[in-house]
Amino acid sequence: MNTFNKLTITLSTAEKMVNAAIEKANELRLSIAVTVVDESGIPKFFARMDHAPLIAIDASRKKAITAAGFGLPTGETWFGFIKDDPILREGVHDFTDFMLMGGGTPIIINDQVVGAIGVSGSHYAQDQQCAEAALDVLKIQ
Amino acid sequence: MNTFNKLTITLSTAEKMVNAAIEKANELRLSIAVTVVDESGIPKFFARMDHAPLIAIDASRKKAITAAGFGLPTGETWFGFIKDDPILREGVHDFTDFMLMGGGTPIIINDQVVGAIGVSGSHYAQDQQCAEAALDVLKIQ
Amino acid sequence: MNTFNKLTITLSTAEKMVNAAIEKANELRLSIAVTVVDESGIPKFFARMDHAPLIAIDASRKKAITAAGFGLPTGETWFGFIKDDPILREGVHDFTDFMLMGGGTPIIINDQVVGAIGVSGSHYAQDQQCAEAALDVLKIQ
Amino acid sequence: MNTFNKLTITLSTAEKMVNAAIEKANELRLSIAVTVVDESGIPKFFARMDHAPLIAIDASRKKAITAAGFGLPTGETWFGFIKDDPILREGVHDFTDFMLMGGGTPIIINDQVVGAIGVSGSHYAQDQQCAEAALDVLKIQ
Repeated sequence: MNTFNKLTITLSTAEKMVNAAIEKANELRLSIAVTVVDESGIPKFFARMDHAPLIAIDASRKKAITAAGFGLPTGETWFGFIKDDPILREGVHDFTDFMLMGGGTPIIINDQVVGAIGVSGSHYAQDQQCAEAALDVLKIQ
Repeated sequence: MNTFNKLTITLSTAEKMVNAAIEKANELRLSIAVTVVDESGIPKFFARMDHAPLIAIDASRKKAITAAGFGLPTGETWFGFIKDDPILREGVHDFTDFMLMGGGTPIIINDQVVGAIGVSGSHYAQDQQCAEAALDVLKIQ
Repeated sequence: MNTFNKLTITLSTAEKMVNAAIEKANELRLSIAVTVVDESGIPKFFARMDHAPLIAIDASRKKAITAAGFGLPTGETWFGFIKDDPILREGVHDFTDFMLMGGGTPIIINDQVVGAIGVSGSHYAQDQQCAEAALDVLKIQ
Repeated sequence: MNTFNKLTITLSTAEKMVNAAIEKANELRLSIAVTVVDESGIPKFFARMDHAPLIAIDASRKKAITAAGFGLPTGETWFGFIKDDPILREGVHDFTDFMLMGGGTPIIINDQVVGAIGVSGSHYAQDQQCAEAALDVLKIQ
């Protein structure tokens, strides 16, 4: 076989997810940046709210890249995985564009990682809430 | 005076402009990527249409950076400016993130560059049409 | 629709193509570097022959990126496209990782760009011969 | 003396090593990326298996660079070396392209580092198994 199939996220779904994350941020009175990358980690959608901290721009990208790159959410899932192995715990930061903090999550459809979303702008627990609000968009459809 | 004021584009206007560029691209049967940067050249909004060529992603960014950086549209305006001065004509590509081709334009409100938009995905003349459709959003308001 | 399908090149086909390019280089008494990227421009396979010039490493990558990014072969096809438009002719080099010289070609299967191959190490006309030998692998199957 | 001799790995041996690593990965039901660099840390060979995680691409490169750069395998050897010296332990990540986790190993022939191999795609202990399978190729000859 010369080729195999991959699923990748559409612009329309990426946009809905970013809007849901921003809506949640407004509800929590936060200003966030949100990045959606596709299944290959390539930028699909990005939005930065007015007054979001500058640091949030690249952090949202790194969280999305980390989530797409491993197919795992950033934050507690990751920390549980590495916390008892000192080589993993210290070495994991050597991955290019790795971000440990919560707010990044793969977008999984039909058991495939079709993209990932990364949110940054507040405490990681709140960033994660916004990312989860974005994922809820997939359940509604 | 310790400080001065800057005007910067809002998320809401950036979003409307990107949507207008995408609507024009759909009308022209193109697939584009669109970047909006703020008055500091920092990413504000980005969207990539399904099936847009890969090259469009970074090209849309460079066009926006070039337009914000000089306060001038890319393309014919630029070429008219440099074409009879060999040092300018050859040297202009040395600017970091410079892009000569049309499709980038500053967003000017109250005589201030409040951001810039860059479009890529097709011939530069069509990219430019999409960027102009985005600017028309500002006239309507 | 949340997702759409993409075709991407397999390791096995990428390997066969690189081996065919190297075989042709041996026949022409050249030492080349060859890069295969997938449909998203991401590295899939790379090999550098003993005694290949250093410059060939990154040039093979850029040729593959350029061919994948536009879906067009580098070299004469490109030059024909840009040669009579001074803005295109001068501006095309502003694309990130753009390479004008022949030796890069998209890998097209079922009308989709599923990857690209870039060859460097000699005059671009010979690099192109090696890239074409790689493409012939697809016809045999 | 104006010059001295260096030994460097051939394409043919690099290829055999990568194939052995991939064979081991298939046996362990993993999808990995493998990079071989030469004695100067410059890319010689690279292959990415279908469905390998994105993160593996650059991680395989970093592991190879780290192993070539120090002449030491990544992972437990490294951790044993640094673990009781806080400056080394925290500072080691400052080396460009450093990667602590196992899966990188120098290729030593006639007491010289002639190159290095880096494997990524799974837990570092399994990546290391694949790298060791690659080294076994040298023993057979």
